[in-house]
Amino acid sequence: MDTAELTELGQQLRVDSVRAAAAAGSGHPTSSMSAADLMAVLLAHHLRYDFDRPAHPANDRFVLSKGHASPLLYAAYKAAGAIGDDELLTFRTLGSRLEGHPTPRRLPWVETATGSLGQGLPVGVGIALAGKRLDRTGYRVWVLCGDSELAEGSVWEAAEHAAYEHLDDLTAIVDVNRLGQRGPTRHGHDLGAYARRFQAFGWHTVEIDGHDVDAIDRAYGEAVSTRGQPTVILARTLKGRGVAGVQDREGLHGKPLPDPEEAIEELGGPRDLRVEVHEPPAARALHSVPTGQPDLPRWEKDSGEQVATRDAYGQALAALGSARPDVVALDGEVSDSTRAEYFAKEHPDRFFECYIAEQQLVAAAVGLATRGWVPYASTFAAFLTRAHDFVRMASVSGAGINLVGSHAGVAIGQDGPSQMGLEDLAMFRAVQGSTVLYPCDPNQTAHLVTTMAGLEGIRYLRTSRGGGPALYGPDEEFPVGGSKVLRSGDRDRLTIVAAGVTVPEALSAADALAGAGIAVRVVDLYSVKPVDRVTLRRAAEETGCLMTVEDHHPQGGLGDAVLDAFLDGRPVPRLARLAVRTTPGSASPAEQLHAAGIDAESIAASVRLLVETAVVP
Amino acid sequence: MDTAELTELGQQLRVDSVRAAAAAGSGHPTSSMSAADLMAVLLAHHLRYDFDRPAHPANDRFVLSKGHASPLLYAAYKAAGAIGDDELLTFRTLGSRLEGHPTPRRLPWVETATGSLGQGLPVGVGIALAGKRLDRTGYRVWVLCGDSELAEGSVWEAAEHAAYEHLDDLTAIVDVNRLGQRGPTRHGHDLGAYARRFQAFGWHTVEIDGHDVDAIDRAYGEAVSTRGQPTVILARTLKGRGVAGVQDREGLHGKPLPDPEEAIEELGGPRDLRVEVHEPPAARALHSVPTGQPDLPRWEKDSGEQVATRDAYGQALAALGSARPDVVALDGEVSDSTRAEYFAKEHPDRFFECYIAEQQLVAAAVGLATRGWVPYASTFAAFLTRAHDFVRMASVSGAGINLVGSHAGVAIGQDGPSQMGLEDLAMFRAVQGSTVLYPCDPNQTAHLVTTMAGLEGIRYLRTSRGGGPALYGPDEEFPVGGSKVLRSGDRDRLTIVAAGVTVPEALSAADALAGAGIAVRVVDLYSVKPVDRVTLRRAAEETGCLMTVEDHHPQGGLGDAVLDAFLDGRPVPRLARLAVRTTPGSASPAEQLHAAGIDAESIAASVRLLVETAVVP
Repeated sequence: MDTAELTELGQQLRVDSVRAAAAAGSGHPTSSMSAADLMAVLLAHHLRYDFDRPAHPANDRFVLSKGHASPLLYAAYKAAGAIGDDELLTFRTLGSRLEGHPTPRRLPWVETATGSLGQGLPVGVGIALAGKRLDRTGYRVWVLCGDSELAEGSVWEAAEHAAYEHLDDLTAIVDVNRLGQRGPTRHGHDLGAYARRFQAFGWHTVEIDGHDVDAIDRAYGEAVSTRGQPTVILARTLKGRGVAGVQDREGLHGKPLPDPEEAIEELGGPRDLRVEVHEPPAARALHSVPTGQPDLPRWEKDSGEQVATRDAYGQALAALGSARPDVVALDGEVSDSTRAEYFAKEHPDRFFECYIAEQQLVAAAVGLATRGWVPYASTFAAFLTRAHDFVRMASVSGAGINLVGSHAGVAIGQDGPSQMGLEDLAMFRAVQGSTVLYPCDPNQTAHLVTTMAGLEGIRYLRTSRGGGPALYGPDEEFPVGGSKVLRSGDRDRLTIVAAGVTVPEALSAADALAGAGIAVRVVDLYSVKPVDRVTLRRAAEETGCLMTVEDHHPQGGLGDAVLDAFLDGRPVPRLARLAVRTTPGSASPAEQLHAAGIDAESIAASVRLLVETAVVP
Repeated sequence: MDTAELTELGQQLRVDSVRAAAAAGSGHPTSSMSAADLMAVLLAHHLRYDFDRPAHPANDRFVLSKGHASPLLYAAYKAAGAIGDDELLTFRTLGSRLEGHPTPRRLPWVETATGSLGQGLPVGVGIALAGKRLDRTGYRVWVLCGDSELAEGSVWEAAEHAAYEHLDDLTAIVDVNRLGQRGPTRHGHDLGAYARRFQAFGWHTVEIDGHDVDAIDRAYGEAVSTRGQPTVILARTLKGRGVAGVQDREGLHGKPLPDPEEAIEELGGPRDLRVEVHEPPAARALHSVPTGQPDLPRWEKDSGEQVATRDAYGQALAALGSARPDVVALDGEVSDSTRAEYFAKEHPDRFFECYIAEQQLVAAAVGLATRGWVPYASTFAAFLTRAHDFVRMASVSGAGINLVGSHAGVAIGQDGPSQMGLEDLAMFRAVQGSTVLYPCDPNQTAHLVTTMAGLEGIRYLRTSRGGGPALYGPDEEFPVGGSKVLRSGDRDRLTIVAAGVTVPEALSAADALAGAGIAVRVVDLYSVKPVDRVTLRRAAEETGCLMTVEDHHPQGGLGDAVLDAFLDGRPVPRLARLAVRTTPGSASPAEQLHAAGIDAESIAASVRLLVETAVVP
């Protein structure tokens, strides 16, 4: 397309953005209009994408980091022939694929859900990592960012990661329209302020007038030809560009234009330009299908050896990586603690060091997952809270990622509360469609690590720092949604439900209580979400009371999880809950468990109290 | 002190760090040794601090952002005479004030809990904001950072905030020892890499040899005399400095020295230097005590007016600010949506715009709270997940902060899932010592906003986008831990427990059911944590079944909260739970509530089903 045609295309994208928002009665047309020329030139001249084959391995990847500018994205889809005008006007209505913020759940051309600002570039870095280090089909990754979102720290984690990995197939395009939701940004139209920051982080920068289609065209060309570092194009634009009544004005964020008909006329009226988007080059996916069952490490039951579940995780993941060439691992600079280093040593080509940047850690995993890789991302359970919003958005995306949090609970000992994951079960249970697993033994860990790879959505595995006995043999099966009944009898007075480090404690308590003539059942609820409804209901019917014991705060963890079995209006058993109810200090692991009231002695004492005071019949 | 004395002091701090970790059998002596000279010079020459009066309004404030170097901090306390040698050697033992990572819960000289990296500088920015804009007693804020933690995006949110606000009383000291936990950092000893980044963000930078006490002394002097911008001192250091066997070597992070006796000898043996720390200048706190009851906005009950709880929040906060000069507000660039703008307009001197940087938003609130201010920090509920780790650490600190999340749940409508807070109740309930409030009406909101100010710990208020009726009069009381029974009779078949937007829905359902001859009770559980045990137990006894209805995912929210009333082994009522069980798309608010099955019609249908199938007796 020549200059005039590109300009016309930009105007068409504006008109269609205005029309879509007007039809919806809501949306962000002014934020779309500022970036319309940037999008027009990308679509017409630089993007290589087959809309009929979104899974094409050599397709370029486009991420709309400023997800609220969705009218612009959908207008571009229409210009590319991917959707029709009728569908465009379904924007934001019930059942439409064209949501307020784009998601890949509904639209095949969307790589990742956006709308929480500062997430598109981090995920784009993950995609570009897949492209450079794994896929190698030559695709480019284009991320359109807003200027407001550059205040998010996650953008600078991404900037650091991209430059360090020399991701020269990654281009960030920043629509510097000067205005955030509430008013001016910190730096307004000072492109230099952004350029200095990106240069300092190691990026190539290009500053342009974002409404000059020829300048945009040259900038994209410069980005493509720049090797060895990522490029950011800083484009000076005007919010609401092209309609005098709204252009560059405050107070108009996220609102349809006051007079859409007049605005469309001012923009030259509707057009029906159709863009022939460049085809991607022929290519095939490099990573092959799984080769078979992994040769998992094996531990003999009751051998006396103490093994930490984090050790089992590292060993099992390394074995899984040998069997499955699509498995990759990432870590937040603590792989010596999480034991992801075992994978890194055996499969260095598929290991990604993300340093101390947990948002980028999860975002990179999401990016890798978009390209079909099966990522396992690990750090301390406590520090995964840093990435909560990224986990939330990964769930909105429907991304399939494995997250592994080590050093869970007070059982870590002396390091104290800053390092203790005591909220992680609550966080991951509340994620839509998640699976939450908490093994207590090395064989169980190894099996769950393997099983996770085949699940949908967010999968979370919680591991422990200290060693424990092998309670199960290496050939035991551990289905998701299952549990293990480890002590059981006809005269059980109640059921202790434990997971992870509290399982051996519960067993010791049960044995001590049996010696005192009090029979109790013990259930290992390694699958915290979904829970084993059948076993919990049977335990409720047969013993009348469930006592949960967890190395986690009392809210949202194991104690709440067992309720999932009793939420249909049927009778609920009596319930008691042992959990960490204070902020711990420093102490040894055994002292911590005792102080929190979740060790064997505390469990036995609590059971005795319930039985002796006849609270439990 | 002269050069030789400062050098001796540095060696003493090293020796005491080695001794403390050796006594504990764990800890981070090598990370302490790299920063020992930086700490020695600060303590002896530049810090102005009265250890007998940690609340002195003109005390400088020191934050150990690399909290794992706690042995160094405690060694400095000993050198300053604040603790004795006996206490130093209690490091990391049960009951000791000297935890693995320092917390203000136990030590009066600690400003904020650290140990989750990348948090000290953001909180330091909050303290420096208090100093510059509110306290004005001239104190300086010194933050000692590690180099590894500069990979955290939160550091760059803080860097941006500090430079934009010209916080020239803030000095960051970076201990560039080249080695992280697992191995080398991205930039090793390249001080220029860090200098370029900080300069680009608007900081004054000084690069020094971090073991040259005279250079350190000059750098601190330069920081103090630099006006108009914050200063960062980038100090090249060696991890484990002074002991050849560990100095600058990998694999020794977080471990006591292999031979402490030999190391102490190599460091010149124990010393007993005592530092006379400079006194702060005389000063008094500027902010005064509350002047009385706020003149809260009032809404007439059942007037027909529709008022959003976010509107009530903004108005009430503005009124509270007039009555209480210690109340401040912060927002993440959405104050037009959260309605914090009402406060900003009336009290611009006490309003802090934090732009789109939610980690920094919460960190700044924590920093302001350390100086006695009562902060209210607001953004969308969904985006508070971005700051989860900061909230977690604020709880470890025992910080008193108010967090307000607007646009909760599917009720926001067309914007879709990226903007919907559907996990926030789970997140905040699991925070140790938190209070979680979810009002349904403007008068209730106004009262809770006022009550929050006087509570301990993390207080969370959840507000809604859309309007609703005034269900209560302006003089109604709403104690924390209370609830309101809105429909009740002798023949209630079950109890609907609702909060926020589901309260009007529950009332409509109850009225419809009453018309069909099915009596149900309705409880407004505005205090989600703590819950009103008495009312819930009575409802359980009298109606036999609780049906919770919440605009939140089913885990960790209202449905789990009601269980808090039934966790002592006593009988539990039958339970049913209506919640958001899918990832929503775009639709109108009413369509969203219906699609999620939490509107009046869905509630009534669910009750009928339970009653007609005789699940509820």
